Amino acid sequence: MYLNNHISNMMIMTDIKQPYNIRKYIDGDWKETTENVCIESNYDLIINDRLIARFTILPIQLENFVVGYLISEGIIDNIEKIKLIQVGESHIHVSIPEIKFTKEEFETFELRTSGYKGPLEFSTNPIEPLITTLEIKPKIIFKTQKILKDRAIIWKETGGTHQAAIFDEKGNLKAFAEDCGRHNAIDKVIGMLYKKKINPEQYFLITTGRLSYGMVSKVARAKIPLLVSNTAPLSKGIDLARKVGIKLVCFSREPKLNVY
Amino acid sequence: MYLNNHISNMMIMTDIKQPYNIRKYIDGDWKETTENVCIESNYDLIINDRLIARFTILPIQLENFVVGYLISEGIIDNIEKIKLIQVGESHIHVSIPEIKFTKEEFETFELRTSGYKGPLEFSTNPIEPLITTLEIKPKIIFKTQKILKDRAIIWKETGGTHQAAIFDEKGNLKAFAEDCGRHNAIDKVIGMLYKKKINPEQYFLITTGRLSYGMVSKVARAKIPLLVSNTAPLSKGIDLARKVGIKLVCFSREPKLNVY
Repeated sequence: MYLNNHISNMMIMTDIKQPYNIRKYIDGDWKETTENVCIESNYDLIINDRLIARFTILPIQLENFVVGYLISEGIIDNIEKIKLIQVGESHIHVSIPEIKFTKEEFETFELRTSGYKGPLEFSTNPIEPLITTLEIKPKIIFKTQKILKDRAIIWKETGGTHQAAIFDEKGNLKAFAEDCGRHNAIDKVIGMLYKKKINPEQYFLITTGRLSYGMVSKVARAKIPLLVSNTAPLSKGIDLARKVGIKLVCFSREPKLNVY
Repeated sequence: MYLNNHISNMMIMTDIKQPYNIRKYIDGDWKETTENVCIESNYDLIINDRLIARFTILPIQLENFVVGYLISEGIIDNIEKIKLIQVGESHIHVSIPEIKFTKEEFETFELRTSGYKGPLEFSTNPIEPLITTLEIKPKIIFKTQKILKDRAIIWKETGGTHQAAIFDEKGNLKAFAEDCGRHNAIDKVIGMLYKKKINPEQYFLITTGRLSYGMVSKVARAKIPLLVSNTAPLSKGIDLARKVGIKLVCFSREPKLNVY
Protein backbone atom coordinates (compact mmCIF):
# COMPACT_ATOMS: atom_id res chain seq x y z
CA MET A 1 0.00 0.00 0.00
CA TYR A 2 2.74 2.49 0.86
CA LEU A 3 5.66 3.69 -1.06
CA ASN A 4 8.13 3.91 1.77
CA ASN A 5 9.77 7.10 2.85
CA HIS A 6 12.89 7.25 0.69
CA ILE A 7 14.61 9.32 3.34
CA SER A 8 14.02 7.06 6.32
CA ASN A 9 16.65 4.56 5.29
CA MET A 10 19.24 7.31 5.18
CA MET A 11 18.21 8.77 8.54
CA ILE A 12 21.21 9.87 10.54
CA MET A 13 21.52 11.66 13.85
CA THR A 14 22.05 15.03 12.16
CA ASP A 15 18.38 14.88 11.20
CA ILE A 16 17.20 15.10 14.79
CA LYS A 17 19.81 17.15 16.59
CA GLN A 18 22.49 19.67 15.82
CA PRO A 19 25.40 20.91 17.96
CA TYR A 20 25.67 24.65 18.65
CA ASN A 21 28.50 26.57 20.26
CA ILE A 22 27.24 28.25 23.42
CA ARG A 23 28.43 30.02 26.55
CA LYS A 24 27.40 28.29 29.75
CA TYR A 25 27.11 30.07 33.11
CA ILE A 26 27.31 27.99 36.26
CA ASP A 27 27.25 29.73 39.62
CA GLY A 28 29.56 32.61 38.76
CA ASP A 29 31.72 30.98 36.09
CA TRP A 30 31.43 31.14 32.30
CA LYS A 31 32.69 28.54 29.86
CA GLU A 32 32.52 27.94 26.11
CA THR A 33 31.00 24.60 25.17
CA THR A 34 28.61 22.94 22.69
CA GLU A 35 25.06 21.71 23.23
CA ASN A 36 22.82 19.56 21.05
CA VAL A 37 19.60 21.18 19.90
CA CYS A 38 16.43 19.56 18.53
CA ILE A 39 15.89 20.11 14.78
CA GLU A 40 12.83 21.91 13.43
CA SER A 41 12.03 21.11 9.79
CA ASN A 42 9.22 22.34 7.57
CA TYR A 43 7.12 19.94 5.52
CA ASP A 44 4.17 20.64 3.26
CA LEU A 45 1.39 18.08 3.22
CA ILE A 46 -0.04 17.70 -0.27
CA ILE A 47 -3.13 15.55 -0.74
CA ASN A 48 -4.17 14.75 -4.31
CA ASP A 49 -1.91 17.58 -5.55
CA ARG A 50 -3.43 20.16 -3.21
CA LEU A 51 -1.45 21.89 -0.47
CA ILE A 52 -3.33 21.12 2.75
CA ALA A 53 -1.01 22.03 5.60
CA ARG A 54 2.50 23.05 6.50
CA PHE A 55 4.14 21.57 9.58
CA THR A 56 7.14 22.33 11.72
CA ILE A 57 8.25 18.87 12.69
CA LEU A 58 11.17 16.75 13.84
CA PRO A 59 11.97 14.99 10.56
CA ILE A 60 11.67 11.36 11.62
CA GLN A 61 8.69 8.96 11.46
CA LEU A 62 7.11 11.11 8.78
CA GLU A 63 5.04 8.33 7.25
CA ASN A 64 3.66 7.42 10.68
CA PHE A 65 2.94 11.09 11.22
CA VAL A 66 0.94 11.43 8.02
CA VAL A 67 -1.13 8.31 8.66
CA GLY A 68 -1.90 9.53 12.19
CA TYR A 69 -2.69 13.05 11.04
CA LEU A 70 -5.13 11.84 8.37
CA ILE A 71 -6.95 9.72 10.96
CA SER A 72 -6.80 12.13 13.89
CA GLU A 73 -8.03 15.10 11.86
CA GLY A 74 -10.91 13.14 10.38
CA ILE A 75 -9.66 13.36 6.81
CA ILE A 76 -10.00 9.58 6.50
CA ASP A 77 -11.54 7.01 8.83
CA ASN A 78 -9.83 3.99 7.34
CA ILE A 79 -6.18 3.52 6.46
CA GLU A 80 -7.11 1.49 3.37
CA LYS A 81 -8.20 4.72 1.69
CA ILE A 82 -4.56 5.81 1.35
CA LYS A 83 -3.18 4.71 -1.99
CA LEU A 84 0.26 6.28 -1.72
CA ILE A 85 2.48 8.22 0.70
CA GLN A 86 5.66 9.70 -0.67
CA VAL A 87 8.00 11.61 1.63
CA GLY A 88 10.43 14.03 -0.01
CA GLU A 89 12.89 16.63 1.20
CA SER A 90 10.25 19.15 2.22
CA HIS A 91 6.98 17.74 0.91
CA ILE A 92 4.79 14.78 1.77
CA HIS A 93 2.55 13.73 -1.09
CA VAL A 94 -0.49 11.59 -0.35
CA SER A 95 -2.92 10.07 -2.79
CA ILE A 96 -6.42 9.34 -1.48
CA PRO A 97 -8.58 8.73 -4.55
CA GLU A 98 -11.85 8.81 -2.58
CA ILE A 99 -11.32 12.36 -1.36
CA LYS A 100 -12.69 15.20 -3.42
CA PHE A 101 -12.09 18.40 -1.51
CA THR A 102 -14.90 20.88 -1.64
CA LYS A 103 -14.07 24.48 -2.43
CA GLU A 104 -14.49 25.40 1.24
CA GLU A 105 -12.27 22.61 2.47
CA PHE A 106 -9.63 23.50 -0.07
CA GLU A 107 -9.56 27.05 1.20
CA THR A 108 -8.98 26.04 4.81
CA PHE A 109 -5.28 25.60 4.24
CA GLU A 110 -3.78 24.92 7.58
CA LEU A 111 -0.60 26.43 8.90
CA ARG A 112 0.27 23.99 11.62
CA THR A 113 3.48 24.96 13.21
CA SER A 114 2.80 24.38 16.87
CA GLY A 115 1.17 27.72 17.34
CA TYR A 116 3.26 29.71 14.93
CA LYS A 117 1.83 30.34 11.50
CA GLY A 118 5.10 29.45 9.87
CA PRO A 119 6.85 30.45 6.71
CA LEU A 120 3.80 31.91 5.01
CA GLU A 121 4.07 35.26 6.69
CA PHE A 122 1.82 38.26 6.42
CA SER A 123 4.87 40.43 6.24
CA THR A 124 7.14 39.69 3.35
CA ASN A 125 9.70 42.14 4.70
CA PRO A 126 12.76 40.43 6.13
CA ILE A 127 13.20 40.83 9.86
CA GLU A 128 15.60 43.69 10.45
CA PRO A 129 18.78 42.95 12.41
CA LEU A 130 19.04 44.55 15.84
CA ILE A 131 22.13 46.31 17.05
CA THR A 132 22.13 46.44 20.80
CA THR A 133 24.46 47.06 23.70
CA LEU A 134 22.07 45.53 26.22
CA GLU A 135 23.86 43.26 28.68
CA ILE A 136 21.96 41.58 31.50
CA LYS A 137 23.75 39.89 34.38
CA PRO A 138 22.68 36.33 35.25
CA LYS A 139 21.68 37.42 38.76
CA ILE A 140 19.18 39.88 37.25
CA ILE A 141 17.77 37.13 35.03
CA PHE A 142 17.35 34.75 37.95
CA LYS A 143 15.67 37.52 39.98
CA THR A 144 13.19 38.25 37.18
CA GLN A 145 12.35 34.56 36.82
CA LYS A 146 11.35 34.56 40.49
CA ILE A 147 9.08 37.54 39.84
CA LEU A 148 7.56 35.69 36.87
CA LYS A 149 6.82 32.70 39.06
CA ASP A 150 5.32 34.83 41.84
CA ARG A 151 2.96 36.53 39.40
CA ALA A 152 1.76 33.31 37.78
CA ILE A 153 -1.47 33.08 39.75
CA ILE A 154 -3.52 31.36 37.04
CA TRP A 155 -0.78 28.78 36.58
CA LYS A 156 -0.67 28.16 40.34
CA GLU A 157 -4.40 27.38 40.30
CA THR A 158 -4.68 25.45 37.07
CA GLY A 159 -1.22 24.37 35.88
CA GLY A 160 -2.49 25.18 32.39
CA THR A 161 -0.72 28.42 31.39
CA HIS A 162 2.52 29.71 29.95
CA GLN A 163 3.83 33.02 31.26
CA ALA A 164 5.68 35.87 29.60
CA ALA A 165 7.07 39.10 31.01
CA ILE A 166 9.17 42.06 29.96
CA PHE A 167 11.76 43.63 32.27
CA ASP A 168 14.19 46.52 32.07
CA GLU A 169 17.92 46.01 32.53
CA LYS A 170 17.64 46.52 36.28
CA GLY A 171 15.02 43.80 36.55
CA ASN A 172 11.96 46.03 36.93
CA LEU A 173 8.75 44.45 35.64
CA LYS A 174 7.16 46.27 32.68
CA ALA A 175 4.61 43.75 31.41
CA PHE A 176 3.26 40.36 32.46
CA ALA A 177 0.82 37.90 30.90
CA GLU A 178 -0.42 34.35 31.21
CA ASP A 179 -2.08 32.36 28.46
CA CYS A 180 -2.93 28.80 27.41
CA GLY A 181 -0.65 29.47 24.40
CA ARG A 182 3.02 30.41 24.72
CA HIS A 183 2.78 32.55 21.57
CA ASN A 184 -0.28 34.37 22.89
CA ALA A 185 1.50 35.19 26.16
CA ILE A 186 4.40 36.75 24.24
CA ASP A 187 2.03 38.77 22.05
CA LYS A 188 0.22 40.09 25.14
CA VAL A 189 3.37 41.48 26.76
CA ILE A 190 4.66 42.89 23.47
CA GLY A 191 1.31 44.65 23.11
CA MET A 192 1.58 46.10 26.62
CA LEU A 193 5.08 47.39 25.89
CA TYR A 194 4.12 48.96 22.58
CA LYS A 195 1.07 50.65 24.07
CA LYS A 196 3.46 52.43 26.45
CA LYS A 197 5.44 53.70 23.44
CA ILE A 198 8.84 53.10 24.95
CA ASN A 199 11.94 51.98 23.10
CA PRO A 200 11.89 48.14 23.16
CA GLU A 201 15.65 47.87 22.69
CA GLN A 202 16.35 48.42 26.37
CA TYR A 203 14.19 45.53 27.55
CA PHE A 204 14.29 41.78 27.67
CA LEU A 205 11.52 39.21 27.44
CA ILE A 206 11.16 36.11 29.60
CA THR A 207 8.97 33.18 28.64
CA THR A 208 8.25 29.70 29.94
CA GLY A 209 8.05 28.29 26.40
CA ARG A 210 10.63 26.70 24.14
CA LEU A 211 12.38 29.10 21.79
CA SER A 212 11.29 27.98 18.33
CA TYR A 213 11.55 29.95 15.10
CA GLY A 214 8.10 31.36 15.69
CA MET A 215 8.84 32.57 19.21
CA VAL A 216 12.12 34.21 18.19
CA SER A 217 10.62 35.88 15.12
CA LYS A 218 7.93 37.52 17.25
CA VAL A 219 10.49 38.98 19.62
CA ALA A 220 12.73 40.03 16.72
CA ARG A 221 9.90 41.88 14.99
CA ALA A 222 9.14 43.61 18.30
CA LYS A 223 12.83 44.71 18.38
CA ILE A 224 13.52 43.21 21.81
CA PRO A 225 17.18 42.13 21.83
CA LEU A 226 17.24 39.46 24.55
CA LEU A 227 14.94 36.48 25.03
CA VAL A 228 15.08 34.21 28.09
CA SER A 229 13.50 30.81 28.77
CA ASN A 230 13.79 28.24 31.52
CA THR A 231 13.50 25.56 28.86
CA ALA A 232 15.05 24.56 25.50
CA PRO A 233 15.72 26.32 22.21
CA LEU A 234 14.95 24.69 18.86
CA SER A 235 17.33 24.80 15.89
CA LYS A 236 15.62 27.38 13.69
CA GLY A 237 15.07 29.62 16.71
CA ILE A 238 18.81 29.80 17.29
CA ASP A 239 19.55 30.24 13.58
CA LEU A 240 17.16 33.18 13.32
CA ALA A 241 18.37 34.76 16.57
CA ARG A 242 21.98 34.69 15.34
CA LYS A 243 20.97 36.13 11.98
CA VAL A 244 19.10 39.09 13.45
CA GLY A 245 21.28 39.79 16.47
CA ILE A 246 19.03 38.53 19.27
CA LYS A 247 20.63 36.89 22.26
CA LEU A 248 18.92 33.71 23.50
CA VAL A 249 19.25 32.56 27.09
CA CYS A 250 17.89 29.04 27.59
CA PHE A 251 17.67 26.47 30.37
CA SER A 252 17.89 29.41 32.76
CA ARG A 253 17.51 27.80 36.17
CA GLU A 254 19.43 29.35 39.01
CA PRO A 255 22.42 29.02 39.29
CA LYS A 256 22.82 27.93 35.63
CA LEU A 257 22.00 29.27 32.19
CA ASN A 258 23.10 28.84 28.56
CA VAL A 259 23.65 31.69 26.10
CA TYR A 260 23.13 30.78 22.42
CA MET B 1 -6.92 55.79 19.65
CA TYR B 2 -8.53 52.63 21.02
CA LEU B 3 -12.08 51.78 21.67
CA ASN B 4 -11.57 49.85 24.83
CA ASN B 5 -12.49 46.25 25.19
CA HIS B 6 -16.08 46.35 26.37
CA ILE B 7 -15.64 43.03 28.08
CA SER B 8 -12.55 43.81 30.12
CA ASN B 9 -14.44 45.87 32.68
CA MET B 10 -16.71 42.96 33.37
CA MET B 11 -13.88 40.46 33.64
CA ILE B 12 -14.50 37.98 36.42
CA MET B 13 -12.63 34.90 37.52
CA THR B 14 -14.96 32.60 35.58
CA ASP B 15 -13.30 33.95 32.43
CA ILE B 16 -9.95 32.46 33.28
CA LYS B 17 -10.69 29.30 35.24
CA GLN B 18 -13.51 26.87 35.75
CA PRO B 19 -13.99 24.21 38.44
CA TYR B 20 -14.46 20.58 37.37
CA ASN B 21 -15.45 17.57 39.46
CA ILE B 22 -12.67 15.02 39.38
CA ARG B 23 -11.45 11.85 41.07
CA LYS B 24 -8.04 12.19 42.67
CA TYR B 25 -5.75 9.23 43.36
CA ILE B 26 -3.07 9.63 46.01
CA ASP B 27 -0.90 6.67 46.90
CA GLY B 28 -3.62 4.02 46.94
CA ASP B 29 -6.63 6.15 47.92
CA TRP B 30 -9.30 7.72 45.72
CA LYS B 31 -11.35 10.79 46.57
CA GLU B 32 -13.91 12.99 44.82
CA THR B 33 -12.94 16.65 44.66
CA THR B 34 -12.91 19.69 42.35
CA GLU B 35 -10.01 21.30 40.51
CA ASN B 36 -9.77 24.60 38.67
CA VAL B 37 -8.96 24.38 34.98
CA CYS B 38 -7.65 27.08 32.65
CA ILE B 39 -10.23 28.36 30.12
CA GLU B 40 -9.68 28.02 26.36
CA SER B 41 -11.72 30.50 24.30
CA ASN B 42 -11.88 30.99 20.54
CA TYR B 43 -11.55 34.44 18.99
CA ASP B 44 -11.53 35.44 15.34
CA LEU B 45 -9.25 38.31 14.35
CA ILE B 46 -10.89 40.46 11.70
CA ILE B 47 -8.81 43.22 10.09
CA ASN B 48 -10.67 45.68 7.86
CA ASP B 49 -13.62 43.26 7.70
CA ARG B 50 -11.47 40.33 6.63
CA LEU B 51 -11.04 37.19 8.72
CA ILE B 52 -7.29 36.87 9.27
CA ALA B 53 -6.81 34.32 12.03
CA ARG B 54 -8.55 32.28 14.68
CA PHE B 55 -7.00 31.89 18.11
CA THR B 56 -7.46 29.65 21.09
CA ILE B 57 -6.69 32.01 23.92
CA LEU B 58 -7.20 32.74 27.60
CA PRO B 59 -9.78 35.54 27.30
CA ILE B 60 -8.00 38.31 29.20
CA GLN B 61 -5.73 41.12 27.95
CA LEU B 62 -7.19 40.73 24.48
CA GLU B 63 -6.43 44.28 23.37
CA ASN B 64 -2.81 43.87 24.46
CA PHE B 65 -2.75 40.58 22.60
CA VAL B 66 -3.95 42.11 19.36
CA VAL B 67 -1.49 45.01 19.48
CA GLY B 68 1.36 42.58 20.16
CA TYR B 69 0.24 40.18 17.46
CA LEU B 70 0.05 42.92 14.82
CA ILE B 71 3.59 44.03 15.70
CA SER B 72 5.15 40.60 16.22
CA GLU B 73 3.77 39.16 12.97
CA GLY B 74 4.92 42.15 10.94
CA ILE B 75 1.40 43.23 9.97
CA ILE B 76 2.20 46.75 11.23
CA ASP B 77 5.47 48.31 12.36
CA ASN B 78 3.93 51.24 14.19
CA ILE B 79 1.10 51.24 16.69
CA GLU B 80 -0.20 54.55 15.33
CA LYS B 81 -1.47 52.72 12.27
CA ILE B 82 -4.24 51.12 14.35
CA LYS B 83 -7.37 53.22 14.18
CA LEU B 84 -9.67 50.99 16.19
CA ILE B 85 -9.68 47.77 18.20
CA GLN B 86 -13.02 46.37 19.24
CA VAL B 87 -13.19 43.20 21.32
CA GLY B 88 -16.48 41.30 21.25
CA GLU B 89 -17.68 37.95 22.57
CA SER B 90 -15.82 35.87 20.00
CA HIS B 91 -14.42 38.41 17.53
CA ILE B 92 -11.76 41.08 17.62
CA HIS B 93 -12.26 43.73 14.96
CA VAL B 94 -9.31 45.93 14.01
CA SER B 95 -9.29 48.85 11.63
CA ILE B 96 -5.93 49.66 9.99
CA PRO B 97 -6.74 52.02 7.09
CA GLU B 98 -3.24 51.79 5.60
CA ILE B 99 -3.44 48.04 5.04
CA LYS B 100 -4.75 46.75 1.77
CA PHE B 101 -4.40 42.99 1.80
CA THR B 102 -3.29 41.47 -1.47
CA LYS B 103 -5.23 38.50 -2.78
CA GLU B 104 -2.45 36.16 -1.70
CA GLU B 105 -2.27 37.59 1.81
CA PHE B 106 -6.02 37.33 2.14
CA GLU B 107 -5.89 33.67 1.26
CA THR B 108 -3.32 32.86 3.92
CA PHE B 109 -5.96 32.71 6.61
CA GLU B 110 -4.25 31.54 9.73
CA LEU B 111 -5.59 28.94 12.09
CA ARG B 112 -3.59 29.73 15.16
CA THR B 113 -4.64 27.50 17.95
CA SER B 114 -1.37 26.54 19.54
CA GLY B 115 -0.70 23.74 17.14
CA TYR B 116 -4.27 22.63 16.62
CA LYS B 117 -6.05 23.86 13.55
CA GLY B 118 -9.12 24.63 15.54
CA PRO B 119 -12.80 24.77 14.83
CA LEU B 120 -12.47 24.88 11.04
CA GLU B 121 -12.12 21.17 10.63
CA PHE B 122 -11.53 19.16 7.50
CA SER B 123 -14.05 16.66 8.72
CA THR B 124 -17.49 18.05 9.26
CA ASN B 125 -18.59 14.78 10.81
CA PRO B 126 -19.09 15.00 14.56
CA ILE B 127 -16.64 12.95 16.61
CA GLU B 128 -18.34 9.67 17.44
CA PRO B 129 -18.73 8.78 21.12
CA LEU B 130 -16.67 5.85 22.36
CA ILE B 131 -18.09 3.11 24.52
CA THR B 132 -15.31 1.38 26.36
CA THR B 133 -14.76 -0.91 29.25
CA LEU B 134 -11.03 -0.18 29.41
CA GLU B 135 -9.83 0.34 32.98
CA ILE B 136 -6.18 0.98 33.71
CA LYS B 137 -4.80 0.82 37.23
CA PRO B 138 -2.71 3.78 38.42
CA LYS B 139 0.30 1.54 38.97
CA ILE B 140 0.21 0.56 35.28
CA ILE B 141 0.04 4.24 34.30
CA PHE B 142 3.01 5.15 36.49
CA LYS B 143 4.98 2.22 35.06
CA THR B 144 4.30 3.31 31.48
CA GLN B 145 5.36 6.88 32.28
CA LYS B 146 8.73 5.52 33.38
CA ILE B 147 9.02 3.68 30.06
CA LEU B 148 8.16 6.91 28.23
CA LYS B 149 10.92 8.75 30.09
CA ASP B 150 13.47 6.00 29.44
CA ARG B 151 12.75 6.08 25.71
CA ALA B 152 13.00 9.88 25.39
CA ILE B 153 16.56 9.90 24.07
CA ILE B 154 16.20 13.03 21.94
CA TRP B 155 14.71 14.89 24.87
CA LYS B 156 17.56 13.79 27.13
CA GLU B 157 20.06 15.29 24.69
CA THR B 158 18.23 18.44 23.66
CA GLY B 159 15.41 19.16 26.12
CA GLY B 160 13.40 20.23 23.07
CA THR B 161 10.85 17.45 22.47
CA HIS B 162 7.47 16.25 23.60
CA GLN B 163 6.90 12.51 23.79
CA ALA B 164 3.88 10.33 23.10
CA ALA B 165 3.36 6.59 23.43
CA ILE B 166 0.61 4.01 23.17
CA PHE B 167 0.36 1.08 25.59
CA ASP B 168 -1.94 -1.87 26.05
CA GLU B 169 -3.83 -2.45 29.28
CA LYS B 170 -0.97 -4.47 30.74
CA GLY B 171 1.46 -1.63 30.11
CA ASN B 172 3.20 -3.09 27.04
CA LEU B 173 4.60 -0.45 24.68
CA LYS B 174 2.99 -0.43 21.22
CA ALA B 175 4.19 2.90 19.77
CA PHE B 176 6.57 5.69 20.78
CA ALA B 177 7.47 9.05 19.24
CA GLU B 178 9.25 12.30 20.02
CA ASP B 179 8.67 15.59 18.26
CA CYS B 180 9.19 19.33 18.66
CA GLY B 181 5.36 19.57 18.56
CA ARG B 182 3.09 17.80 21.03
CA HIS B 183 0.44 17.35 18.33
CA ASN B 184 2.95 15.85 15.91
CA ALA B 185 4.10 13.33 18.54
CA ILE B 186 0.50 12.18 19.05
CA ASP B 187 -0.08 11.87 15.30
CA LYS B 188 3.07 9.78 14.93
CA VAL B 189 2.01 7.17 17.49
CA ILE B 190 -1.56 7.08 16.17
CA GLY B 191 -0.11 6.45 12.73
CA MET B 192 2.02 3.59 14.06
CA LEU B 193 -0.99 2.01 15.76
CA TYR B 194 -3.20 2.29 12.68
CA LYS B 195 -0.55 0.82 10.42
CA LYS B 196 -0.65 -2.30 12.62
CA LYS B 197 -4.41 -2.51 12.03
CA ILE B 198 -5.28 -3.39 15.61
CA ASN B 199 -8.36 -2.25 17.47
CA PRO B 200 -7.47 1.09 19.14
CA GLU B 201 -10.14 0.70 21.82
CA GLN B 202 -7.96 -1.55 23.96
CA TYR B 203 -5.09 0.94 24.19
CA PHE B 204 -4.25 4.15 25.97
CA LEU B 205 -2.12 7.08 24.90
CA ILE B 206 0.39 8.93 27.08
CA THR B 207 1.67 12.39 26.23
CA THR B 208 3.85 15.03 27.87
CA GLY B 209 1.64 17.85 26.55
CA ARG B 210 -1.33 19.66 28.03
CA LEU B 211 -4.71 18.20 27.11
CA SER B 212 -6.35 20.93 25.04
CA TYR B 213 -9.36 20.53 22.75
CA GLY B 214 -7.04 19.81 19.85
CA MET B 215 -5.14 17.06 21.65
CA VAL B 216 -8.33 15.36 22.87
CA SER B 217 -10.04 15.56 19.47
CA LYS B 218 -7.11 13.78 17.82
CA VAL B 219 -7.26 10.92 20.29
CA ALA B 220 -11.07 10.78 20.05
CA ARG B 221 -10.98 10.51 16.25
CA ALA B 222 -8.40 7.74 16.61
CA LYS B 223 -10.90 5.94 18.93
CA ILE B 224 -8.45 5.61 21.81
CA PRO B 225 -10.51 5.74 25.02
CA LEU B 226 -7.93 6.90 27.60
CA LEU B 227 -5.48 9.79 27.43
CA VAL B 228 -2.82 10.41 30.06
CA SER B 229 -0.58 13.43 30.70
CA ASN B 230 1.85 14.41 33.43
CA THR B 231 0.63 17.99 33.05
CA ALA B 232 -2.63 19.98 32.96
CA PRO B 233 -5.90 19.73 31.03
CA LEU B 234 -7.57 22.78 29.47
CA SER B 235 -11.29 23.44 29.70
CA LYS B 236 -12.41 22.53 26.19
CA GLY B 237 -10.30 19.38 26.32
CA ILE B 238 -12.27 18.15 29.33
CA ASP B 239 -15.60 19.22 27.82
CA LEU B 240 -14.91 17.27 24.63
CA ALA B 241 -13.58 14.22 26.48
CA ARG B 242 -16.76 14.04 28.58
CA LYS B 243 -18.95 14.44 25.51
CA VAL B 244 -17.31 11.64 23.56
CA GLY B 245 -16.58 9.25 26.41
CA ILE B 246 -12.82 9.60 26.69
CA LYS B 247 -11.22 9.39 30.10
CA LEU B 248 -8.54 12.01 30.83
CA VAL B 249 -5.82 11.37 33.39
CA CYS B 250 -3.83 14.53 34.16
CA PHE B 251 -1.06 15.61 36.51
CA SER B 252 -0.06 11.96 36.61
CA ARG B 253 3.07 11.97 38.75
CA GLU B 254 3.66 8.97 40.94
CA PRO B 255 2.05 8.48 43.45
CA LYS B 256 -0.68 10.95 42.36
CA LEU B 257 -3.03 11.44 39.44
CA ASN B 258 -6.33 13.15 38.62
CA VAL B 259 -9.14 11.62 36.55
CA TYR B 260 -11.38 14.13 34.71
